[in-house]
Amino acid sequence: MRTVFYISDGTALTAEAFGKAMLSMFPLKVEHKTLAFIDSQEKAETAVRRINEAYEKSGERPIIFHTFVSVEIKRVITQSAGSCYDFLDYFVAPLSQELGIPAQPKTNLTHGIQENYDFRIEAINYTLANDDGSNISDYDEADIILIGVSRTGKTPSSLYLALQYGIKAANYPITDDDDFEKLQLPKILKPYRHKLFGLTLEPQRLHEIRSKRREGSRYASMQQCRFELQAVEAMYRREAIPFLDSTRFSVEEIAAKILNETNLERHCY
Amino acid sequence: MRTVFYISDGTALTAEAFGKAMLSMFPLKVEHKTLAFIDSQEKAETAVRRINEAYEKSGERPIIFHTFVSVEIKRVITQSAGSCYDFLDYFVAPLSQELGIPAQPKTNLTHGIQENYDFRIEAINYTLANDDGSNISDYDEADIILIGVSRTGKTPSSLYLALQYGIKAANYPITDDDDFEKLQLPKILKPYRHKLFGLTLEPQRLHEIRSKRREGSRYASMQQCRFELQAVEAMYRREAIPFLDSTRFSVEEIAAKILNETNLERHCY
Repeated sequence: MRTVFYISDGTALTAEAFGKAMLSMFPLKVEHKTLAFIDSQEKAETAVRRINEAYEKSGERPIIFHTFVSVEIKRVITQSAGSCYDFLDYFVAPLSQELGIPAQPKTNLTHGIQENYDFRIEAINYTLANDDGSNISDYDEADIILIGVSRTGKTPSSLYLALQYGIKAANYPITDDDDFEKLQLPKILKPYRHKLFGLTLEPQRLHEIRSKRREGSRYASMQQCRFELQAVEAMYRREAIPFLDSTRFSVEEIAAKILNETNLERHCY
Repeated sequence: MRTVFYISDGTALTAEAFGKAMLSMFPLKVEHKTLAFIDSQEKAETAVRRINEAYEKSGERPIIFHTFVSVEIKRVITQSAGSCYDFLDYFVAPLSQELGIPAQPKTNLTHGIQENYDFRIEAINYTLANDDGSNISDYDEADIILIGVSRTGKTPSSLYLALQYGIKAANYPITDDDDFEKLQLPKILKPYRHKLFGLTLEPQRLHEIRSKRREGSRYASMQQCRFELQAVEAMYRREAIPFLDSTRFSVEEIAAKILNETNLERHCY
């Protein structure tokens, strides 16, 4: 199997994102290796040894996605046996010309602490404190409040919105207490109607997820899942709450779709 | 001010990562706009209008970072007044040649649901259930257990490890109950010594963070912060627990540095 290396003198997150996007275009199984913080000649030489060993072992040239600030260290890596791809290299010159300013590469700028860093950590703390309907007094501060029945992805989606975009995302569960027979929007949410966003799933998927938690329970039964989802979707429609069926979506896609539908601003990039 | 657009027929996360890395090389303030899920001719035309309006308003050509699977929709965008950058375009041909297989672009592959998706959601659930020392019975399952005094970044770092890398990261607070005068490794952690990783901060930074929570308290005082940090760092050294001073690092950098030091495998890419 071919080995893919993601190498950088920083976190290598950009190299990983770059490589992941490239590889998604090819139907191919590979082995992944990240070498982060390769910030000295010596570490670069160790990295080259690892690349060359992978080549000898598999007989296939390793693929190297790299983003270096240091030109000297980059030179060591590109002399390895790997097939090297560096997107920064190619695009810096044209972008510099368009902007009319020279590039000033510094290590750790892309994923370092930026101006709005504290803001993002605050969003994470807010989201944790407001997970699962736990802290309703703070809803004035929420950017968005995700609602849905148990296990429809409210928590991971809230956390991703906070971590990636600095958005204060509370979430509130619709439960048995709300009486699914004649489901009403919980009173407590009414003043925040404009911040609500509903999540839903296909019954089969919810049944699978709940079964992992409590197999054979009424809670996990296909019948109960179908019943709760029908009730909650009817409520979303009646109350004109925007909602998303997240069955086929990853947490990244759910977050991006929510931002798209609500026109919420990303607080960080 | 120049406007930067991140545009894609998917989540635009790759376009954002690409653009962010590029822009980090230039000392420049810009306005960011993400246009995600631009998956029809009509949406592309609306996007072009927004780009051209931004140009008219500022008199500076907008910068466009885009990643499209659809060639037709891409063509609409590149006919806008913006200066367009597409890293996929440039690198697909050489990578295809190296791999010896043609590219098979499909929408939403990069950030869609992959094989190991459930695994990642499990890691998030595990990390939440094991936040702040709340569920010690599960530590056999942990990939790593972050420890440190209150407000040293354990929770955001654990969550990032789970969300980004699928790592089950518990965290456990070292508190007053542990008696800072003669601080010992809490008994409960001893069987998991090999999984422990310490976080610390500079006293000034911890004082600032705690002051936001409880201004003027003993808990937030410079003296108490210094005292706790000295005690916990001495314990890390005595017990040979690897640790990191995270004062100058973002959550991305902390997570990448922890993986680097511990050689923990990333569970997803």
